[in-house]
Amino acid sequence: MEKLLMTPGPTNIPNDVFNKMSLNIHHRTDEFDEIYKNVNIKLKRLFGCKNDLALLLSSGTGGLEASVVNLFSKGDKLLVLNCGVFGKRFADIARIYGVDVHEKIVEWGKGVIEDELRQELEKEKYKAVYATYSETSTGVKNDIKKLGQVVKNYDSLFIVDIVSALGCVEFNADEFSVDAAIAGSQKGLMCPPGLSIISLSDSAWDAIYNSTIPKFYFDLKKYKDLNMPYTPGTSLILGLDESLNIIEHNGIDNIIKRHKRHSDIVKYGCKLMGLKEFPDSRFNSEILTALYVPEGLSAKEIIKEMSKQGIVIAGGQGKLKGKIIRIGHMGYVKDEYIIKTMKGLGTSLNTIGYKNDTDNIVKQIENMLEAQK
Amino acid sequence: MEKLLMTPGPTNIPNDVFNKMSLNIHHRTDEFDEIYKNVNIKLKRLFGCKNDLALLLSSGTGGLEASVVNLFSKGDKLLVLNCGVFGKRFADIARIYGVDVHEKIVEWGKGVIEDELRQELEKEKYKAVYATYSETSTGVKNDIKKLGQVVKNYDSLFIVDIVSALGCVEFNADEFSVDAAIAGSQKGLMCPPGLSIISLSDSAWDAIYNSTIPKFYFDLKKYKDLNMPYTPGTSLILGLDESLNIIEHNGIDNIIKRHKRHSDIVKYGCKLMGLKEFPDSRFNSEILTALYVPEGLSAKEIIKEMSKQGIVIAGGQGKLKGKIIRIGHMGYVKDEYIIKTMKGLGTSLNTIGYKNDTDNIVKQIENMLEAQK
Repeated sequence: MEKLLMTPGPTNIPNDVFNKMSLNIHHRTDEFDEIYKNVNIKLKRLFGCKNDLALLLSSGTGGLEASVVNLFSKGDKLLVLNCGVFGKRFADIARIYGVDVHEKIVEWGKGVIEDELRQELEKEKYKAVYATYSETSTGVKNDIKKLGQVVKNYDSLFIVDIVSALGCVEFNADEFSVDAAIAGSQKGLMCPPGLSIISLSDSAWDAIYNSTIPKFYFDLKKYKDLNMPYTPGTSLILGLDESLNIIEHNGIDNIIKRHKRHSDIVKYGCKLMGLKEFPDSRFNSEILTALYVPEGLSAKEIIKEMSKQGIVIAGGQGKLKGKIIRIGHMGYVKDEYIIKTMKGLGTSLNTIGYKNDTDNIVKQIENMLEAQK
Repeated sequence: MEKLLMTPGPTNIPNDVFNKMSLNIHHRTDEFDEIYKNVNIKLKRLFGCKNDLALLLSSGTGGLEASVVNLFSKGDKLLVLNCGVFGKRFADIARIYGVDVHEKIVEWGKGVIEDELRQELEKEKYKAVYATYSETSTGVKNDIKKLGQVVKNYDSLFIVDIVSALGCVEFNADEFSVDAAIAGSQKGLMCPPGLSIISLSDSAWDAIYNSTIPKFYFDLKKYKDLNMPYTPGTSLILGLDESLNIIEHNGIDNIIKRHKRHSDIVKYGCKLMGLKEFPDSRFNSEILTALYVPEGLSAKEIIKEMSKQGIVIAGGQGKLKGKIIRIGHMGYVKDEYIIKTMKGLGTSLNTIGYKNDTDNIVKQIENMLEAQK
């Protein structure tokens, strides 16, 4: 049985995307060239960047690695704002390639505020600063716009993981002073996993031409000017073409509002069930809801009960394993999915002994969804 | 309009594969784990290797890079049997990572014979030997079984690019003494591009644990024992599950015979048209037919004419650009595709002034296909 994916990604995928993916178009044809160009134009609008994008056939982690091996040379200083699993991952990658990494380790559940960043940048000169826009491991969102304002005063590159943010929350690479933004196909872009997409500012391109770290498959110079150096992910690119059409048809501003509305309603419903959110409310992300597992219950059991009802949610990662559950509401999410999920959560909790008035809560949620339509 | 892909890859894809790809199953579920395990079991049978496979979310080139950065350390000696674009690519990748590469450059259109390899291995001790099974740039096939017999006497690893060979021609990693075989999803495996699959012998695993080249995304140790360190290509893996079912249902021996039959018939038909094959007949591959462009004609024009008839074929790569055309007949190819392609080729050539008796030739091809069914 096909299940509703209310996880922090991969997410639900519209049928039109799957249908488009099933067109088998060869990459060395005028027809594909045309599609590739159009995908790039639409991506530039969505990323808010004037330069062409680089499309890699890899997961988001491949995109993170590509940004490390292309922007740095051995010994370069990098400040990583580490707010969870993905911040740590970027630091790990950079260290492996000999980058001099300084980690600002943030308590899980919190984000970074401008003053903290400013302090770090006053202490030391960095070639680049890395931040995660939406850290799915903790449910935290950093204010990239504000952090970008700080970074641009210090002549550092600003590298941002927008894997789970793009197509869900406000983003504009050029306006936010982001030099390299790394996205993935399987979140707000409503496609299966397999494409990582990187925007690069002029300063980022300068750094790329100065980098001496060895690379081949991820060498971004080869992907410049929409070049396809190796067989690209044709099927995924066709799917992306369609999902970008859907995004433009709905309007990104409306989509961002929908994410906020769904997030507010899920968080409100969870509160009514007596559940406590994991992240500090100042940094709470709209793309997912991370909740403490109530005492005496097991995350695994909640996830299993929901799965029986055809709903996939996620547990915690790393040190949060077993301690939290995560409900994603990013990408292709309809109001009815929110209702089904909250009903599923309430009844699952009831089944395993955590009593709550699911019917009443779901009724309230339905009313809110209707009122705020 | 959807076109027939008679190229050296990506190839035609059965509808059942696309349908399976459209099931949206999350990778962190028991359901996906089960599928992943079954895919591995079927891959082990197809590769003919006892060890588990590593599945990477990348194109075939990513798989080639993964084998370089995992099997070698800086300064290790590697002998590359370079028969074309893909042999050269492997040498290029290895050099970038500081491997001491010795290239045995073979005249394009020829393969390597055992004595030549033996001579090289008598002269110098190599950590590994690389060969391309089917070099799609030239239409050459190396006899990997015989070359493997040689390599195993010299205590070297044998790395083989089987990207366009697996699922088309006979292969058995363990029996052929191949330590690392790199395949891709978009050829004989009848899926879209995006997965590279690597088989690894026990000796290859030993080398992996001794390698000191930095790597992260492609670090094969993390993929050991069917581990999924990063978001895997869920949709592509589902497609692969289906295509492996199709392969097992038809029987790999029958599929190999079909490739041979189609290849013989296409090559015969081309001869009747007066076209001359590019590769030396001793090394001619069954997966594609590489043909000289007749004097006075343009490769581009032939390809364009065929495209108008809904058939995609390929031109030459590298120094063969403009000099040859390549017709792929690998993976999901029905008899009717062969007829359509030969009819398309004959009429396209007629249109641009290269006269041939297409009707009669196609009739002969139809009869041969029928007779050899």
